[in-house]
Amino acid sequence: MDPNSVAKAFVEHYYSTFDTNRAGLANLYQDGSMLTFEGEQFLGAQNIAGKLLSLPFPQCQHFISTVDCQPSGPAGGMLVFVSGNLKLPGEEHPLKFSQMFHLMPTPQGSFYVQNDIFRLNYA
Amino acid sequence: MDPNSVAKAFVEHYYSTFDTNRAGLANLYQDGSMLTFEGEQFLGAQNIAGKLLSLPFPQCQHFISTVDCQPSGPAGGMLVFVSGNLKLPGEEHPLKFSQMFHLMPTPQGSFYVQNDIFRLNYA
Repeated sequence: MDPNSVAKAFVEHYYSTFDTNRAGLANLYQDGSMLTFEGEQFLGAQNIAGKLLSLPFPQCQHFISTVDCQPSGPAGGMLVFVSGNLKLPGEEHPLKFSQMFHLMPTPQGSFYVQNDIFRLNYA
Repeated sequence: MDPNSVAKAFVEHYYSTFDTNRAGLANLYQDGSMLTFEGEQFLGAQNIAGKLLSLPFPQCQHFISTVDCQPSGPAGGMLVFVSGNLKLPGEEHPLKFSQMFHLMPTPQGSFYVQNDIFRLNYA
């Protein structure tokens, strides 16, 4: 399958899950997965999902501007780099963000998120 | 060595080389290295250096806002995620950018850039 198609499908799935059923994101991470969210580090699906569910906005909307991807090496991983806008409830202006994912293949032929780094671009 | 220190040292070296001796960046890439620059893809140190040297601004200044890093897997690689501002000559306002690097260890105990994805954050 074309890596760009995999990356785009993952990105659509990730952000639509984030915006409509955030608890469902836990399934995309594993025990060794890492998230760095605005400089704060979390290890493992449970801690990562805990962070994402505890964000102080129950609803939000992601609007994707760009998706870039590259293979990460011989283990079949894929790097996905996203830029976009995040609209929070009650806020008129969306926030720009960038996020990168390192996806690794599962034995079932799918991917999980090994690495996830998120930053708002306001600085 | 602390991964955060390695990441910060790499980032300082990379952008100071970019801003003062751009041709020197070629040494940081290898034949299998990949660059995606504003959506355009380049493979190999020679093509990557060619692109960076042909950018339509001979001088620029990078100002780093954030550096995040995570280990990428058992092969000893490291993911480095950077946000910052890029000041071009004659332009009053800097441009926000985000960039990610996947660094892989060399036999000499150093790192080279296996993956590099760059985006301006204007969308």
